[in-house]
Amino acid sequence: MGNTFGKIFKITTFGESHGLGLGVTIEGCPAGLAIDEGFIQSEMQRRKPGQSKITTQRKEEDEIKILSGVFEGKSTGTPIGMVIMNTDQKSKDYSHISDKFRPSHADFTYFEKYGIRDYRGGGRSSARETAARVAGGAVAKMLLQHFGITVHAYVSQVGELKLDKPYQEMGLSQAEDNIVRCPDPAMAEQMISYIDEVRKSRDTVGGVITCVAKGVPAGLGEPVFDRLHAELGKAMLSINAVKGFEYGSGFKGVTMRGSQHNDAFYQDGDKVRTKTNYSGGIQGGISNGEDIYFNVAFKPVATIMQDQDSVNEAGEAVTVSGKGRHDPCVVPRAVPIVEAMAALVLADYLLIGRTNKLLI
Amino acid sequence: MGNTFGKIFKITTFGESHGLGLGVTIEGCPAGLAIDEGFIQSEMQRRKPGQSKITTQRKEEDEIKILSGVFEGKSTGTPIGMVIMNTDQKSKDYSHISDKFRPSHADFTYFEKYGIRDYRGGGRSSARETAARVAGGAVAKMLLQHFGITVHAYVSQVGELKLDKPYQEMGLSQAEDNIVRCPDPAMAEQMISYIDEVRKSRDTVGGVITCVAKGVPAGLGEPVFDRLHAELGKAMLSINAVKGFEYGSGFKGVTMRGSQHNDAFYQDGDKVRTKTNYSGGIQGGISNGEDIYFNVAFKPVATIMQDQDSVNEAGEAVTVSGKGRHDPCVVPRAVPIVEAMAALVLADYLLIGRTNKLLI
Amino acid sequence: MGNTFGKIFKITTFGESHGLGLGVTIEGCPAGLAIDEGFIQSEMQRRKPGQSKITTQRKEEDEIKILSGVFEGKSTGTPIGMVIMNTDQKSKDYSHISDKFRPSHADFTYFEKYGIRDYRGGGRSSARETAARVAGGAVAKMLLQHFGITVHAYVSQVGELKLDKPYQEMGLSQAEDNIVRCPDPAMAEQMISYIDEVRKSRDTVGGVITCVAKGVPAGLGEPVFDRLHAELGKAMLSINAVKGFEYGSGFKGVTMRGSQHNDAFYQDGDKVRTKTNYSGGIQGGISNGEDIYFNVAFKPVATIMQDQDSVNEAGEAVTVSGKGRHDPCVVPRAVPIVEAMAALVLADYLLIGRTNKLLI
Amino acid sequence: MGNTFGKIFKITTFGESHGLGLGVTIEGCPAGLAIDEGFIQSEMQRRKPGQSKITTQRKEEDEIKILSGVFEGKSTGTPIGMVIMNTDQKSKDYSHISDKFRPSHADFTYFEKYGIRDYRGGGRSSARETAARVAGGAVAKMLLQHFGITVHAYVSQVGELKLDKPYQEMGLSQAEDNIVRCPDPAMAEQMISYIDEVRKSRDTVGGVITCVAKGVPAGLGEPVFDRLHAELGKAMLSINAVKGFEYGSGFKGVTMRGSQHNDAFYQDGDKVRTKTNYSGGIQGGISNGEDIYFNVAFKPVATIMQDQDSVNEAGEAVTVSGKGRHDPCVVPRAVPIVEAMAALVLADYLLIGRTNKLLI
Repeated sequence: MGNTFGKIFKITTFGESHGLGLGVTIEGCPAGLAIDEGFIQSEMQRRKPGQSKITTQRKEEDEIKILSGVFEGKSTGTPIGMVIMNTDQKSKDYSHISDKFRPSHADFTYFEKYGIRDYRGGGRSSARETAARVAGGAVAKMLLQHFGITVHAYVSQVGELKLDKPYQEMGLSQAEDNIVRCPDPAMAEQMISYIDEVRKSRDTVGGVITCVAKGVPAGLGEPVFDRLHAELGKAMLSINAVKGFEYGSGFKGVTMRGSQHNDAFYQDGDKVRTKTNYSGGIQGGISNGEDIYFNVAFKPVATIMQDQDSVNEAGEAVTVSGKGRHDPCVVPRAVPIVEAMAALVLADYLLIGRTNKLLI
Repeated sequence: MGNTFGKIFKITTFGESHGLGLGVTIEGCPAGLAIDEGFIQSEMQRRKPGQSKITTQRKEEDEIKILSGVFEGKSTGTPIGMVIMNTDQKSKDYSHISDKFRPSHADFTYFEKYGIRDYRGGGRSSARETAARVAGGAVAKMLLQHFGITVHAYVSQVGELKLDKPYQEMGLSQAEDNIVRCPDPAMAEQMISYIDEVRKSRDTVGGVITCVAKGVPAGLGEPVFDRLHAELGKAMLSINAVKGFEYGSGFKGVTMRGSQHNDAFYQDGDKVRTKTNYSGGIQGGISNGEDIYFNVAFKPVATIMQDQDSVNEAGEAVTVSGKGRHDPCVVPRAVPIVEAMAALVLADYLLIGRTNKLLI
Repeated sequence: MGNTFGKIFKITTFGESHGLGLGVTIEGCPAGLAIDEGFIQSEMQRRKPGQSKITTQRKEEDEIKILSGVFEGKSTGTPIGMVIMNTDQKSKDYSHISDKFRPSHADFTYFEKYGIRDYRGGGRSSARETAARVAGGAVAKMLLQHFGITVHAYVSQVGELKLDKPYQEMGLSQAEDNIVRCPDPAMAEQMISYIDEVRKSRDTVGGVITCVAKGVPAGLGEPVFDRLHAELGKAMLSINAVKGFEYGSGFKGVTMRGSQHNDAFYQDGDKVRTKTNYSGGIQGGISNGEDIYFNVAFKPVATIMQDQDSVNEAGEAVTVSGKGRHDPCVVPRAVPIVEAMAALVLADYLLIGRTNKLLI
Repeated sequence: MGNTFGKIFKITTFGESHGLGLGVTIEGCPAGLAIDEGFIQSEMQRRKPGQSKITTQRKEEDEIKILSGVFEGKSTGTPIGMVIMNTDQKSKDYSHISDKFRPSHADFTYFEKYGIRDYRGGGRSSARETAARVAGGAVAKMLLQHFGITVHAYVSQVGELKLDKPYQEMGLSQAEDNIVRCPDPAMAEQMISYIDEVRKSRDTVGGVITCVAKGVPAGLGEPVFDRLHAELGKAMLSINAVKGFEYGSGFKGVTMRGSQHNDAFYQDGDKVRTKTNYSGGIQGGISNGEDIYFNVAFKPVATIMQDQDSVNEAGEAVTVSGKGRHDPCVVPRAVPIVEAMAALVLADYLLIGRTNKLLI
């Protein structure tokens, strides 16, 4: 269980850090969608390791291959199968940690759960699995684009460095202009220096990603349990290293009064709109047509280039030594993953929404 | 879609604010569990309206009736059906808002989604539906208790009033000793006065609930998408008025270094434990045997006793006037709901966990 | 698991033979459908016990009550909860079989599965649970009717008495004119006499129900696993006492040559049609617009008014004595159940079908 | 929808006749199972085309490659991803049928459903997709074998040639000794000659496969909707060309009296057994420990080497000419597919069964 996401438009993924390859099966993509393989590949590039000095220097080409479900450039309605072969899977010796539990990694919990574990690079618990999500999310994005919906994420905090500008005041696509993926050039520079410094100190640091979806029609969401923001929250919390999720006013909304927080409705042409948007575009778990926005908190990466105390499978005290090529901060590469998961939720709810009324 | 929660131990609910009744069907409760109807009813009392001066004064008895699935005091493995008849459903006239959209309520979004809405008290979007969750959660709690797992929630913040003590320093069950459900008596008093003041100013305010699960065995969680904390997050975000979720170090963890944040392992008798618990009892989406703890942010209640600008179904500007009996702050009554949803997730994952290994 | 049927339009049922009541929650019924409570009740009458001399003489009123999901006569899109209270549940003493396994009943298997069983009237394994299906199916029928789809079932065989007329040559609604529900009056009379004779010999006999769905649009079905006929087959096989399912040419088709069996296409106005219909209206698991028809085989009822050898929970040889009021042949009352399950499948697939293409 | 089968132990497949490749993702395989890749490959050989003179002469190597989920020869509990690359996908020109609807194929229904179709060899509707099922089923078989459960299928009828021996009187594994897969050597020879004759007449013929599962423990099955035989039935009906399913006494049971049909219980050592087995090993939808057996009816293959009348997408009358390399009778190659699907159901229900009782 746990390797499928979605209800109608859904992905099932497989693959671990050091197996032969990863894959994703996309079910429920409506027939007739133009599938741009180049776009999928370009999304893969945004996530792939080795893309800048502030990410891991590991090399993976992350080349996707579509095996099914697309004919003459269009989706056929049948499952779209894609694979990404691992090219780097034999390059490293893991014997030094094969029986040790790395602190704040999933080594111990996988061992407890399954009684066996693939110790090479964390196996399935490695963020490598998110490559398959990005491939699936790219198809979701193409579907959304067809209906005029866009999803943009960016880095809004690294350690204590917090961007306080509201998203409306920035060009969101500018986030792609720098390696940390922050749309404010000055802050981006600070963040890059900071991450580089953390890296040099053989340590890691956390961050926050903000995501904004525009053009989402009113009416998407499936209360009571599958509220739109509940599914978005689950999607985000399912990404490696995520510790928190808030949408609209979020944790800050707690201190507000109802009279401040309520978003007054007004009529704008033939559309009902709200004057403020503390609701984050979602009311009662259903989109209201305003921008959807939310924050995702990422912890500092667990792999640090320092010696740490731990135990091994035999219960003996051991030292885990930092080694290898790892990210000092996960958020720059997590931006496309956040977008992918958000796109998957929206694509799914868009299709589910077609079944709500008697006539459509 | 959206009215079922869980995979093995799962609940399906029905019912709205002013229908004849609510109901819950519990599937997957293992056979042989002693079912204490009195305990279920006592959980209902903790949630029900009219319980104190700082909650709504509406009266609902919330009496549950078990229709199936229990024989001679024990679960039989077949679905447990329970109903709660609405006793207050005809007491009010809703004609004054029948075509108006109340700000930050779900009136508009339900109307957009379904093209029709039950305007009486919010219909299905009313927090009244959570009564069925509490009934289901009570059975989940009995299952957990059988395996030595406990779930306790409490109010840790109301508006700006924030309890800064860690949960370890308080007796969690003391939360039930006061009407705001905060385990610190001094803070509880402040919170009560504050909510009462907000109520008198015809306004509302938000709050935070903290929840702690103890005794959860290592190994529960279903990566990659159904990580334990992702499902807990979804469960919490599915509760009315929730805007955010964080577990372990949460949003604060963002500013930490990996070297601080990592939880070092040590051997404690025959158990592997961690020295700190920034992980919040979950690593890689799987429980590690430490306490699981998380925070849930609630916005201020949308119904305020003040006039507000809005529009109606015809797109005309209207005034929505505050009326009726509503909660000035939702958190005191939301404590048992948070516990119920957490218990449902844990019961479900406990059973799923039985299928992970070849031999158990 | 196993108490929910359907994917979008789905029902979850609870209730056993001698509990307080039964219930069904219908999720996914599109908003805006006129719900005729009288029609639901009339479907219940067709299934209820005591309706004629050839059914059980047990009395149950089977009165349904709608608790939610319908407002001002229309579905609101939220779950429709219905309950049927058991009125006869205390009328009988089951102590004589409380530890005995009745042959070809589910007493032994429930006991093995759950380690506990509700021995009163078979508990959940009683066909009493199908009352909830009929209530759910009645709502599905109203949805289908809105789209011009009809579902008619009838008894086509009782013991060796087999109706050899194709369904096209009979008025299907005439099945309701007699107590055995066979649309051929002469055959109906024979069947009634035969069942009555079997009843007098304190025995039981099996039968076949044929079901025809008309007006199903081309394009419904979800290959590869959820082919339309596979889901119909599962739906039928989930009904008590069913031993077989075949559609179109069925088991007889085995002996045909491809050149006979293939259904040639021709153009009929703007519609593509087939000259023959050995496919039973389904090709590749997807409806082709022709009539869908299938047969369902029911075994003889296991409860007979005779002494039978068996064992008890302690493994001792015992005699099970026939007692009570039971059906000598299940098919007359099973006709509305077959229709209900077929309607549920078609309603579900109709809605799923809305998600197949990019534009609809 | 429709490309996933199972609830806990489940497979998701992708791939069509002439895409680059097929794949299967197996979720829920318990950790620690020894995975014998050679066995999986040997199951593929049993299904693959070109294996004898009575099957299609098309050549596909059907070589499986495991990409994930297996480490050091054992399942890790994470998804097992396998791919089978198509080697023959470019060998044929399909332009002659690209806009024609082949009679009793899925060309027309796919076109109606999706508005687009992959006309090369039937696309996803081709029985080629069953290769992925066999790969998944092979893993299920290894799990069953670990628990002492075996599944054997064989051809029991081809056209009018019907094997009347009960399965108990034959060595089931002998079915593999001849190319038609009938365990009775004399009948096998007749069947082979008959199929060969049909092939020479450029026609096709149907058949029946019987399947027997031994060693299934009592207690598997999920009433009321997911009865064990209902899921087996769905599994079988989801296979290409299947028209009917019956288990135990099946359609013949209809003519029996309850007094004949009931299976009397007796005590056999510490086991409760039945004297007869008309129930087919399943009572009330739950296994009772006796052999499970059922029949699956296959229609004659739709592709015949003859000219047939049809229409094209433009609604014009056209002739479809028989061409290519096709099976004159599908049953010999369908034997491993039936076994695979049965094994998948049993493996799934075996794991679900672990969640039924409080203590296991």
